[in-house]
Amino acid sequence: MIVTPQTQHFAEPLVLKSGAVLPAYDLVYETYGQLNAGRSNAVLVCHALNASHHVAGLHADANGDPVARSEGWWDNMIGPGKPLDTSRFFVIAVNNLGSCFGSTGPTHTNPATGQPWGADFPVVTVEDWVNAQARLLDLLNVQVLAAVMGGSLGGMQTLSWTLQYPDRVRHAVVIASAPNLTAENIAFNEVARRAIVTDPDFCEGHYLREGTLPRRGLRIARMIGHITYLSDDVMNAKFGRSLRARDDTEAVQAAELAYRYTTQDVEFQIESYLRYQGDKFSEYFDANTYLLITRALDYFDPAREHDGVLSDALARAKAKFLLISFTTDWRFSPARSREIVKALLENRCDVSYAEIDAPHGHDAFLLDDPRYLEAVRAYFEQTVAQEVAA
Amino acid sequence: MIVTPQTQHFAEPLVLKSGAVLPAYDLVYETYGQLNAGRSNAVLVCHALNASHHVAGLHADANGDPVARSEGWWDNMIGPGKPLDTSRFFVIAVNNLGSCFGSTGPTHTNPATGQPWGADFPVVTVEDWVNAQARLLDLLNVQVLAAVMGGSLGGMQTLSWTLQYPDRVRHAVVIASAPNLTAENIAFNEVARRAIVTDPDFCEGHYLREGTLPRRGLRIARMIGHITYLSDDVMNAKFGRSLRARDDTEAVQAAELAYRYTTQDVEFQIESYLRYQGDKFSEYFDANTYLLITRALDYFDPAREHDGVLSDALARAKAKFLLISFTTDWRFSPARSREIVKALLENRCDVSYAEIDAPHGHDAFLLDDPRYLEAVRAYFEQTVAQEVAA
Repeated sequence: MIVTPQTQHFAEPLVLKSGAVLPAYDLVYETYGQLNAGRSNAVLVCHALNASHHVAGLHADANGDPVARSEGWWDNMIGPGKPLDTSRFFVIAVNNLGSCFGSTGPTHTNPATGQPWGADFPVVTVEDWVNAQARLLDLLNVQVLAAVMGGSLGGMQTLSWTLQYPDRVRHAVVIASAPNLTAENIAFNEVARRAIVTDPDFCEGHYLREGTLPRRGLRIARMIGHITYLSDDVMNAKFGRSLRARDDTEAVQAAELAYRYTTQDVEFQIESYLRYQGDKFSEYFDANTYLLITRALDYFDPAREHDGVLSDALARAKAKFLLISFTTDWRFSPARSREIVKALLENRCDVSYAEIDAPHGHDAFLLDDPRYLEAVRAYFEQTVAQEVAA
Repeated sequence: MIVTPQTQHFAEPLVLKSGAVLPAYDLVYETYGQLNAGRSNAVLVCHALNASHHVAGLHADANGDPVARSEGWWDNMIGPGKPLDTSRFFVIAVNNLGSCFGSTGPTHTNPATGQPWGADFPVVTVEDWVNAQARLLDLLNVQVLAAVMGGSLGGMQTLSWTLQYPDRVRHAVVIASAPNLTAENIAFNEVARRAIVTDPDFCEGHYLREGTLPRRGLRIARMIGHITYLSDDVMNAKFGRSLRARDDTEAVQAAELAYRYTTQDVEFQIESYLRYQGDKFSEYFDANTYLLITRALDYFDPAREHDGVLSDALARAKAKFLLISFTTDWRFSPARSREIVKALLENRCDVSYAEIDAPHGHDAFLLDDPRYLEAVRAYFEQTVAQEVAA
């Protein structure tokens, strides 16, 4: 499946939750499959921290040939014949405002200054993203979504859709998510942000203007993030205490190698893996975007305006829900999904809940666990599709 | 209890596990209580990452008056009438080599260069510390210890004592510890180290020579560490999603304040707490020491030289053991203590084990949980003291 990103310009200002106004902006998005005649088969897929609108298929090069390694980040979930079947559903994925993959964000030009927005880009929230997505759907002539789906921060957007636009969402698929961040979640985000902000190359967020990039901070931020995406079990299974082989060829069991006794060089495989992930990330991700998106996570808290009572906050929702969590996810643990399930049930909502026994931690929502993929497939085939046809 | 640190110089070189040789060195230590006539009531207390030889009592100022806030880090555990009762036992606590509280370490002068050791200070291991402690005990004329005790990294030293000097330890009290670090443990250490090493003020570890200090890196390192010391539960109970009040007076519940919508300023109480901890730490702790001590943690793995079989590694131990773990400690979980218990039982060792249901995470080993303190008290009164008297 070859896909082409599209860009939509919005000339109408967007009033953000903070009160700030984004004067005009672009949204980059992709669609997969065809909107049916009744305009009833559209599914919006929301992305998490470092992902984008490119959820499925491959991009093409100038000759129209598929580009290797350009696979969408949820290609195992979305496509023809896949759990979210694009031969049946019209799938839309939007790069969120403030991100760094095409939609207007801190790397773009601030019309007021003619310079990159940098740290002056306004703080965006989950609610703002949902409003921006809704405007795009208006232009695509999609009034009601068959479903909204997302994992992690994408699940928060999904939940928010059912509250901000209760009449526009038939089904909400909320995966590996939470009704808000815990203190520990915020703490990890904050350390990552401090690593970025205190990098001398951050230049108070105007590094592009200064011709620098706070790569050191981004590396640290990504390393911290990565630890929280994985479970202790899967880290032990994948890396354990293995040392990195001296000739960089392959992993060697710890017992087969002698310690090098070094404090600064790589000794263990896990160190090598984390450094690699950090380096890679720092080459493509924007530091101000990292601050904005982690803050959107911190701020999301629908119960906040209801004295902390989640069931009151969710009383507006009219959608039917599928929630999925993963047993070893300690970032957004099953207990957090169960909080949402409980609050929905208190509102007599139609809720299905699957707690998948998977070893992979938070990352499991992106991986090929058959029970997980089948749970999503079954929901779309047996529940969402019935209403689309009806 | 007023105590005075003492310094012992060692002119004999110490051959380290890495093969490097420390030509000469000082150890700073404190003692509490009196060695009995039979020299049978000595207890060695080992410290963890950022602690020191000052485990109990108060230091005095030049006039001999107690200095406020100079209380030893384990003063709730050790002192007259306390669980480790210094009216009964002669307690010795040593600052480890490579640390920054008096014993020879990276901030001291490298005799070969006349400059601070900095990053050239040799890598020290748990085993090296134990050897250095044993030499000090020789000078103090203590051949056999009634007990060795330590929490976390101190527990690793305690375990190592029973393997390196099985005939010199009657009892080993190993608290909130582990037989080695998991991949996740190493990962957190590595991120902290990278934050320090990539701080431009680290100057490849020779910041003292350059007249700088890598405070940014130390702050991040400490923030990461702090998150892993606390449980998710206690963070939620203590900070939750509360916002920091604008007038800096006191904590205010989130619902009572409006978000400020900021990516760089403090918004949540947990952020304020972590920044404070990071700032404080960066003022007194040495960056190279942080690297060395986290590496000592990474490298500790007695099973490594026994094909990974812990019970083989522990076959040398002759001591009796008390192990204690805390239910919410996710850094060194109860499962890790149980691994040690199991391996000791396989060797028919005498083992007591207490798993304390405490909410405070890894930090619990420093706190005033009555069941925990009573478990230690009972062990010293009923078991260790009997043998001292005998």
